[in-house]
Amino acid sequence: MRLSRYFLPVSKEAPADAAIVSHKLMLRTGMVRQNGAGIYTWLPLGYRVLKKIEQIVREEMDRAGAIELLMPTLQQADLWRESGRYDDYGKEMLRIKDRHDRDMLYGPTNEELITDVFRSYVKSYKQLPLNLYHQQWKFRDEVRPRFGVMRGREFLMKDAYSFDLTEDGARVAYYKMFCAYLNAFSRMGLTAVPMRADTGPIGGELSHEFIILADTGESAVFCDKTLLDMDPPGLDLDFDGDLSGEVEKRTQYYAATEEMHDEAAFAAIPEDRQVSARGIEVGHIFNFGTKYSKPMNAVVQGPDGQMVPVQMGSYGIGVSRLVGGIIEACHDENGIVWPDSVAPFHVGLINMRAGDEACDKACGELYEQLEAAGIDTLYDDTDDRAGAKFARMDLIGLPWQLVIGPKGLEKGIVEVKNRKTGEKVELPFAEVIAKVTPA
Amino acid sequence: MRLSRYFLPVSKEAPADAAIVSHKLMLRTGMVRQNGAGIYTWLPLGYRVLKKIEQIVREEMDRAGAIELLMPTLQQADLWRESGRYDDYGKEMLRIKDRHDRDMLYGPTNEELITDVFRSYVKSYKQLPLNLYHQQWKFRDEVRPRFGVMRGREFLMKDAYSFDLTEDGARVAYYKMFCAYLNAFSRMGLTAVPMRADTGPIGGELSHEFIILADTGESAVFCDKTLLDMDPPGLDLDFDGDLSGEVEKRTQYYAATEEMHDEAAFAAIPEDRQVSARGIEVGHIFNFGTKYSKPMNAVVQGPDGQMVPVQMGSYGIGVSRLVGGIIEACHDENGIVWPDSVAPFHVGLINMRAGDEACDKACGELYEQLEAAGIDTLYDDTDDRAGAKFARMDLIGLPWQLVIGPKGLEKGIVEVKNRKTGEKVELPFAEVIAKVTPA
Repeated sequence: MRLSRYFLPVSKEAPADAAIVSHKLMLRTGMVRQNGAGIYTWLPLGYRVLKKIEQIVREEMDRAGAIELLMPTLQQADLWRESGRYDDYGKEMLRIKDRHDRDMLYGPTNEELITDVFRSYVKSYKQLPLNLYHQQWKFRDEVRPRFGVMRGREFLMKDAYSFDLTEDGARVAYYKMFCAYLNAFSRMGLTAVPMRADTGPIGGELSHEFIILADTGESAVFCDKTLLDMDPPGLDLDFDGDLSGEVEKRTQYYAATEEMHDEAAFAAIPEDRQVSARGIEVGHIFNFGTKYSKPMNAVVQGPDGQMVPVQMGSYGIGVSRLVGGIIEACHDENGIVWPDSVAPFHVGLINMRAGDEACDKACGELYEQLEAAGIDTLYDDTDDRAGAKFARMDLIGLPWQLVIGPKGLEKGIVEVKNRKTGEKVELPFAEVIAKVTPA
Repeated sequence: MRLSRYFLPVSKEAPADAAIVSHKLMLRTGMVRQNGAGIYTWLPLGYRVLKKIEQIVREEMDRAGAIELLMPTLQQADLWRESGRYDDYGKEMLRIKDRHDRDMLYGPTNEELITDVFRSYVKSYKQLPLNLYHQQWKFRDEVRPRFGVMRGREFLMKDAYSFDLTEDGARVAYYKMFCAYLNAFSRMGLTAVPMRADTGPIGGELSHEFIILADTGESAVFCDKTLLDMDPPGLDLDFDGDLSGEVEKRTQYYAATEEMHDEAAFAAIPEDRQVSARGIEVGHIFNFGTKYSKPMNAVVQGPDGQMVPVQMGSYGIGVSRLVGGIIEACHDENGIVWPDSVAPFHVGLINMRAGDEACDKACGELYEQLEAAGIDTLYDDTDDRAGAKFARMDLIGLPWQLVIGPKGLEKGIVEVKNRKTGEKVELPFAEVIAKVTPA
């Protein structure tokens, strides 16, 4: 993409009302624009990151055997009356009346709707196990939306729902998501720690939050350092195999959010492994048995002919929140430092003297070669000052910067800078693409 | 995807309340489920088609130089008070109050919001031309939603918005979208005819609807047959070049919807070229000048230093509606006949005797080869009867069917059926992939 044709409204100043670094940087880099309290437009740069995260989540859900569909944003209130949550949910639920005065709502979550889809079609244990997911916008009418996309009102969530005949089956489904989550977050460059969690208003017995550590985290968290050093299960994991080992390998170590914290258990960890930090919740998984299937009569016939309520779990990932979460974890004093996998572009190409025939030609050719090699490139072909170009490129944090100017051209070289390490090397044109190609 | 692990709730009977063939087929094939009047869940098969259409639209918008972002579904009422449309829009606009009693609405379209984004950042003609688009769910509270996804209340629309300094510039932007639309619809296997249209509530002077012909179309349309036989501009079109020839080549021929129909002009066409038919609107483009930029004060500085309201246009494609539209245009008595480009899977592989060791092995190997070749395959590994498998595969309309059974295996062959032509050939295993690989 040529910057002269792109829409990248960066600004020099941090807006006064942004309290945390990710919010500041997302506004400064023109990733989002607020349209109302907790409601954002995803500007082109931000939208690219959002799509990359969404795609990683999709691939890891698919790998774990979940099947994608899409439920609508608006729902009928009647379904929520069946589950009993319509009155319970409180003011966070955005309640709406349509022109025929029917009670509707903007879905804050989808347990009721997916249970209704399920019971309409699935009648036999032979159709199980099943895990259905979607990535759809939700609305929760927070009293005080804040921290940019970290606590917005309209937000993008991936929510998966598992259906099994037995409790053991439901546990297997839970383990699959547990492992898929670790892989997904790892692919985004994050170390997410599963922490035993309170089950809250969704209810149920088994539940973990996935927390990334960041100074600006919303809550205090406590864990064994061993968990931070552990590799994810890996993309070659056999999801049809026994996953209990992968889960127990982690759950044997202490990890808890503030609400679930046990001082004595934490004190029993060797002192050099006690991590006390702030954390950001990026995922949450629940096993809640028959909490919804019973009142909503989602029953299946078992092998013995008996009809039983289906065992369910739900599994959320905060897709739009992750954009902020990744920035909290990946930035320096000059701006964002994107992990390769979610960077809006992989390379930033800087033309030091736009308008100069030789520079334009060399840049144009390299730009075409990069695009032909499938490397997403933002080509700064503007006539801004060199200093402004460098600062902007650092600010938006693309993994690689390629700088072409008259001096380098005389020597036939390109300056290649790695945004994360700051390392700069001069390379002949022919070696540039190999250098910046992702492993 | 193995059917035994998929979620494909097909049904034998056409539901009584479905009035048109696409709605019937979408319900029978388990593509969508209605969750309320005009509100649908996109089940896995339907969602795959929706995503393919969305991706074609994205690629053709990008090719024409438009830039993708994402605006939220909910908007502040105040923006619509600025443009004057808040009171004008009527009951089709879903009006909402949040917990702080602020007036909001579920966006039926986005002229106001994009104008607000634009005026926040763009101050100079040097930042123009600009075309920003998104693909987002909209809500229009129709009195009588009907025809399935063809006239739903919650629907997915691609809407692009162009910004130019001058009327001439705006015309160039309009021409780009005109050509991009023809390419996009052509890629979906559709012949869309641009018809001069009434500008309606969006206002403005220059406007075309893009109409596909189908017996169940919502309105009568009239055109010169020449338009139906014309090739699209083509994917190698230079969007930076002069596109007026491409546009005039088409607009010189008569084409009009009922509202704009001119009997005398139509009668002047040679009789064998007079087409009088029913049509479905799948796209609509408008040039509306300063209708929104003036009241909302979206002004840019021109080369002479004067501030002038920006010239705008908007360009819609009914993405979710197209799923129904394509089925209306592409089906036979046995079910859907998907064009390759939007088919949910490219190949359906039928195991005639699931459980038979040789059949399972041969099917499993071919399935893996197809997936490795990047060919999306639905593998029917269920133990349903052969007749049921054939009927289901015809119903869901994948372009190719591969049938493997004990008899064929003895001869080392696979039966390959083309869903559209009905042609069946027997091929050795080694030749199957080449046969079904898209050109």
